[in-house]
Amino acid sequence: MAATPHIVIIGGGFAGLWATRALAGMPARITLVDRHNHHLFQPLLYQVATAGLSAPDIAAPLRHILRRQKNVEVRMATVTAIDTDAKRVTLDDGTTLDFDRLLLASGATHAYFGNDQWAEHAPGLKTLDDALDLRRKLLFAFERAEAASDPIERDAWLSFAIIGGGPTGVELAGTLAEIARETLRDEFRNIDPSQARVRLVEAGPRVLAAFPEELSEKARRQLEHLGVEVTLGTPVKGIAADGYTLGDTFVPAKTVVWAAGVAASPLGAMLDVPLDRAGRVLVQPDLSIPGHPDIFVAGDLASLVQANGKPVPGVAPAAKQMGRLAARNIRARLAGETTTAFVYKDYGNLATIGRMAAVVDLGTLRFSGILAWWFWLVMHVFFLIGFRNRLVVLLNWFWAYWSYQRAARIILGEDRDHPAMERP
Amino acid sequence: MAATPHIVIIGGGFAGLWATRALAGMPARITLVDRHNHHLFQPLLYQVATAGLSAPDIAAPLRHILRRQKNVEVRMATVTAIDTDAKRVTLDDGTTLDFDRLLLASGATHAYFGNDQWAEHAPGLKTLDDALDLRRKLLFAFERAEAASDPIERDAWLSFAIIGGGPTGVELAGTLAEIARETLRDEFRNIDPSQARVRLVEAGPRVLAAFPEELSEKARRQLEHLGVEVTLGTPVKGIAADGYTLGDTFVPAKTVVWAAGVAASPLGAMLDVPLDRAGRVLVQPDLSIPGHPDIFVAGDLASLVQANGKPVPGVAPAAKQMGRLAARNIRARLAGETTTAFVYKDYGNLATIGRMAAVVDLGTLRFSGILAWWFWLVMHVFFLIGFRNRLVVLLNWFWAYWSYQRAARIILGEDRDHPAMERP
Repeated sequence: MAATPHIVIIGGGFAGLWATRALAGMPARITLVDRHNHHLFQPLLYQVATAGLSAPDIAAPLRHILRRQKNVEVRMATVTAIDTDAKRVTLDDGTTLDFDRLLLASGATHAYFGNDQWAEHAPGLKTLDDALDLRRKLLFAFERAEAASDPIERDAWLSFAIIGGGPTGVELAGTLAEIARETLRDEFRNIDPSQARVRLVEAGPRVLAAFPEELSEKARRQLEHLGVEVTLGTPVKGIAADGYTLGDTFVPAKTVVWAAGVAASPLGAMLDVPLDRAGRVLVQPDLSIPGHPDIFVAGDLASLVQANGKPVPGVAPAAKQMGRLAARNIRARLAGETTTAFVYKDYGNLATIGRMAAVVDLGTLRFSGILAWWFWLVMHVFFLIGFRNRLVVLLNWFWAYWSYQRAARIILGEDRDHPAMERP
Repeated sequence: MAATPHIVIIGGGFAGLWATRALAGMPARITLVDRHNHHLFQPLLYQVATAGLSAPDIAAPLRHILRRQKNVEVRMATVTAIDTDAKRVTLDDGTTLDFDRLLLASGATHAYFGNDQWAEHAPGLKTLDDALDLRRKLLFAFERAEAASDPIERDAWLSFAIIGGGPTGVELAGTLAEIARETLRDEFRNIDPSQARVRLVEAGPRVLAAFPEELSEKARRQLEHLGVEVTLGTPVKGIAADGYTLGDTFVPAKTVVWAAGVAASPLGAMLDVPLDRAGRVLVQPDLSIPGHPDIFVAGDLASLVQANGKPVPGVAPAAKQMGRLAARNIRARLAGETTTAFVYKDYGNLATIGRMAAVVDLGTLRFSGILAWWFWLVMHVFFLIGFRNRLVVLLNWFWAYWSYQRAARIILGEDRDHPAMERP
């Protein structure tokens, strides 16, 4: 082995960044590759989409986070090929990285389950750019409704549907209902924004399926209290520019948001090892891949069933824990020691629903409502990277609470769906 | 005349918004049209481009600003035609607005003086989208330099040129030098960002030509102290993807920014009245246009030489004053009274250069340096719309001062110049 081993880590999300930090001080050369220049705090991404926070509030440049960790070099690039036998990664700028150890942590993207044509009409939410696109789409719908002379068209612009009752769908629906009912009050002359219909559509029997049934039911009631119409047990069969098909019924709605499914990053397939149905890499208990003890996968891209028979969930704490264990196993392997199997420590599950509403499941302790919301807020602010981000997010939250206003109601970028509205 | 006159105001910048507010309480129906949903505080736009502020920090939704002014309806749309005889404005969504009085205040855009092919390589700065594009371009150049293996290519990525020594050029150059020397310190492994060359190129004999000569000279010295190379008296003769031609010399530079010229909004030409060389509308002393006493033009789009022989400058205070006078004259004309001629009240001129450096010209009182910078800061925060924006901008400034960090160093959007860097 070369004097200084080269460790390549792909992905600066929770798994990749936590692994990188866990390798601090190690006599190794680490290259962290990400296609963005920032680490993103995904749990608050819906707040950027709903104009409560600015993009930089929940992101920090990877270089800045890692500036004092001298064994790391950060590269902003997209991976175009991984050769597991030659131990080589190719980047889109044409350069190659030869590695001794590889950690692939490129995460997940949204998936339309074979209905990719829906993507055009029902965007999803995974990156900051997605969030800004979605913000434009949501705010723009009210502008179009205000300008519409035909009442049927106006109603279609005031009809919103969120497809998928998981945490993202619930957050988006609850916040959008608050925007329509409170934030936009008094600002329009031809429409009453509070008449907007916000529907949350879930194919399964309940929202927040990862939570105990009693909390799902509480979440549903809190959503309806905020003004969201919740439809359960009916799958969406089609999505078009002017509405969607629910069971056998076409529902007019100009704005449909996709929060129904995630699939693994396409980089997983480059490893040439078995994947699960969602495209995730079936990892060994120590997070390495079969036949390649020097290659590890962590985070949302890794598929692992624990010894207790439960799959590791695709949540931020699991990604961080996996990242740290992968780093530990990389160290072990470089030292010629044996690796350790991953054991997920489940500290609980929380989801926010909207203004002062959330559900918390800490195993034995379950609660919902205002107290859960405060708990959710404190945990999320605490886990944000960067003191300044914490301060600004708190400030924005107090502002939003006190004024019902949302700080970032600025439509950015050109609207691709409505080219006539582009800048001349 | 109809019972309730309809006043159409085009443009929600300083002129249009100040006119709209000056018409509060009037028994009229006002429609304010803007192609964006927000009023933008343009004097701080360079801070968004240089990652010091987020886009929403310096913008506020027009609807929100005007929510309590019940005689105003806000329309987000682009004007496609103005018929001055039929008194009708056509919007890009196909609707038309019949007006009794019109105020056109659609401002200015950047101009390449017949070299429109330069726009592709040297973007300008007028809108929030421009600022985010420019931010991406500036931050991305350091990423490319870090990844470059060829030293000549690396140097080209570390070479920046700002074309134009007016206030925007000076602000951009000073701030970019600070980013290279201080903000990015320690974050790169293959390059030393402080070795970046930031050149400010001005064809005329001095920077900040609107200021007294002594302040221009002080500004030049402050720029050089910050690390900017200032080139005076040499025009740029060409701009390409990999550099620009200064006089007869080609200078390699991957990043060139255009801050050299503005032209009037193209809507001015729709009025079918004489324009000046920059495309601005030659208005009457009362800001109406020849032959159409019911149509007014205000702000950067209006060209007016005052009684003292001096042209009204294209600055924010002049736009606000023009907007207010146009409103007063619209009121006067509706009441059958005579209109008033515009007189520009010049309270002084200030420009910022970079960290703790600025110049202030209050006529008899002229100063520069740290004191001028504080004066500039207080004035700009004071004139921002919205208490929250003021608070956040102040917070960001203290943060930047204390930590040398810039809060918004997040690369957003796809890079159109380098499609290989797009998301897969």
